[in-house]
Order: sequence, then C-alpha cells, then structure tokens
Amino acid sequence: MNSPTPILVFDIFGTVVDWHGSIVRDVQALYPQVDADAFALAWRAGYQPAMQRVRSGELGWTLIDDLHRLILDGLLPGFGLAHLSEAERQHLNRVWHRLNPWPDAVQGLTRLKTRHTLCTLSNGNIGLLTNMAKRAGLPWDCILSAEVFRAYKPDPAVYLGAANIFDVPPEQVMLVAAHQDDLAAARACGLSTAYIERPLEFGAGHIKDVSPDPANTWHARDLVDLAAQLGC
Amino acid sequence: MNSPTPILVFDIFGTVVDWHGSIVRDVQALYPQVDADAFALAWRAGYQPAMQRVRSGELGWTLIDDLHRLILDGLLPGFGLAHLSEAERQHLNRVWHRLNPWPDAVQGLTRLKTRHTLCTLSNGNIGLLTNMAKRAGLPWDCILSAEVFRAYKPDPAVYLGAANIFDVPPEQVMLVAAHQDDLAAARACGLSTAYIERPLEFGAGHIKDVSPDPANTWHARDLVDLAAQLGC
Repeated sequence: MNSPTPILVFDIFGTVVDWHGSIVRDVQALYPQVDADAFALAWRAGYQPAMQRVRSGELGWTLIDDLHRLILDGLLPGFGLAHLSEAERQHLNRVWHRLNPWPDAVQGLTRLKTRHTLCTLSNGNIGLLTNMAKRAGLPWDCILSAEVFRAYKPDPAVYLGAANIFDVPPEQVMLVAAHQDDLAAARACGLSTAYIERPLEFGAGHIKDVSPDPANTWHARDLVDLAAQLGC
Repeated sequence: MNSPTPILVFDIFGTVVDWHGSIVRDVQALYPQVDADAFALAWRAGYQPAMQRVRSGELGWTLIDDLHRLILDGLLPGFGLAHLSEAERQHLNRVWHRLNPWPDAVQGLTRLKTRHTLCTLSNGNIGLLTNMAKRAGLPWDCILSAEVFRAYKPDPAVYLGAANIFDVPPEQVMLVAAHQDDLAAARACGLSTAYIERPLEFGAGHIKDVSPDPANTWHARDLVDLAAQLGC
C-alpha cells in the first residue's frame, strides 16, 4: 500500500455507531414509561467516571461490559426500574452489543477497506465489538480493544500499542474519531488523526459542536466523506 | 443463532493456510539454489522448540514474528544463505504474513460465517494474522491470538480465553484444526472440536496421516466439507 497511513483505527461509540439512538430505541420498546433520552444520556455519562476508577486503580482491570452493568445497576432505581430481574438487566446491558451503525458507516468502511487495514480501537471489550460488527455488518480487518492492551484510552499504551501490533511507526496509523480529546491523545503519541462530525451523537435535543480543529490531519462530514477525501 | 457452537475458532498454520507450499514458492523464487522443501520443513521444525523456550520462561514473552526470525537466523548458514542482508532477512521472515490459503479455505469460511462467529485462534501474532487475512481474503469476524492471552497453545489459557472473550461456556466454542494435539488440548478445556484433513501440510513428499479420532465432534475433508456438515 502506498498510502502514508496504511492502518486506520476507529473509535466506535459515537463515531461508527449511534449509541444514543440505539439505546433510546431499545428502552422505548422495552420500558415505554421511561424517559429514554435521559436514560441513554445518564448511562453514557457514567462511562468516563467508571473507567477512571479502573485507571486510578480503585477497580482492578474491568471490561466495559461489566462497567456498563455497574452503571446500569446504579441507574435503574432513579428511572423506576429497580424491579428488573437479573435476566432483564443482562438483556438491557447487552444493548451495547446491538448498537446501530450511523447510516454512512458500512458504505464508508467498505470503501476505506479497499486501500487500508481497518481496526477498531475502542475501550469496548473484544466480545462486544465482535458481536456488534457481526450484527451491523461492519467489515473490520481486526478487532483491537483496550482489552488487548489492558489500558483504557486516552492511555498512550492503547495508541502506541496499535502501531506496535503492526510493527509500524505511529505516523503510519490514523485514529478516526468523533471526539477531539481522543484525537488529541492519539496525536500526542504521533498518530495521524481524522475527525468525523457526529452532531447527533447525543440526540437531536443536544446538538454537538463539530467545529474543525486544524490540528487534525483530516476533517470529514462522515465516513463516506472520509473515504472520498482519502481517494477510496 | 441456534447452533450449539456459535463460535468457531481456527488454528491457522496448516489448517487454513499452506505454510509449506507458500514458503517453498517464495524460497524457490528468491533463492533457486536452495532446497526449498528442506528449508520450509527446517524452519517449521524450529517452531515448537522456540515456543517451548517461551513457555518454560527461558525467553520472556516473544511474538511469533520474532521467534520465526530467531529460527531463520540460525537456519541460514546451513543453507548457504549466511550472507543475507538485514532487509533480505526481514523480507523472508515476512513470508509468514504472505501464506496462501488452502483452495477450499475462503469458500468454506465464507459459508461458515453465515451462521457462526469466526475467529482465528493461533499462536501467530495479531499483526501477522491480520496482514495474512487481508492478503488472502480470509473473512474473520475477530482476530484472536496467543498475543491476546500472552500464552501459547496448548496452554489452557488460550482455549478458555476464547470462551471468556464471548462470555459463553467452553462447549459453545469449537476449535477447528488439522492437528490432533491442538484439538485434544481444546477438548480437555471443554471445547468442541473439528478435525480438518490436510494430508499435504508437509508437502507432497511427506504425506501426513489424517486418520479420524472419534474423540472429535466433527471430522471433515476440508473447510467446505465442514460447512456442508454444519448445514451452512
């Protein structure tokens, strides 16, 4: 491959799949009495603090599936769902395996795959990412996860680990993400970066600022646009 | 999925790809004066002893790419290739990333993928397995490797690790391999097993015994035959 960035690694939650819309869909179907928008936002809001408990050492190494469950159990009483059975909680927690891709994702990835090696680079665990890809038709070449490196982004071990896996210098790896902080951490490790606009990440009621940061190598409207910009 | 073994994990070298034929092809093209058959066999013969040095703790954790290189460097003088440059050695060592699939592999895997989650479960490192799959068109859902578990087959940590990744009991995972010892170790961990006949694994001059072992759940001529037996 002649491209200067043969390896593309992707943030997943929010960048490739629509966690907010997918959780709203499942919660509305299962528990119509619940404010599904608030529920989705509260669940996701617990994500960074939960990972921080792992990063700080307060919790030992814990997979995202288990962190999601920990947050969920804390959340249910406030939404009138304290009565949910163990089986119901397990099913609801697996919604993170059933997230829908953004409408451009499969087409964009399929085009990018013709000229690049495509890997996930997510804090999600390997099983979650594989089940999600299988259901959604995401054509990854390789599932990379914090689980492989036993460190959560933005730990440099994750970004540098991806370059190490392929035995290439960091600048031959590009992180594709909808989050400027993730991209900044990757850049600090020497990776190239591509920002993807996802104004609806938090739902139509909470439009996200998607202003360009000139520090990124690329800025794209979506994954089809990125493929076009990269000549795929 | 209704299958009792939703997850299929595959041995790679010899089972899915033809290491002997691929190395012979490259060595004949690069160094026609060398006995390519003997070279391929000698390289592969160094594989188990090299992994044993890791298992025993004599070597720290070492990727297969580096073990292949260690064996290669020891091999070259005996084949009149002591003069090879560093770049030539690196290129030759990467032949393990360029192994050709057996003729049935892509079709068989493509059919199996319609009803199962397909993962590599190889001692090969993640980068090697990903590059190989990309070149050969092997449609994995997930690249699992000894590198993820930091243990080499037949360590139980590898077989049980695969079940753990998908949060399923071991019997819901099936190892597909052309080696009875690999399958026996998987069975001892509770996995289902499928033996694949690869009589030409060591080349046409060294036909391998491919007798069935009734302890395996399935016995198949090749991966297309396995797909047919599994109703895919």
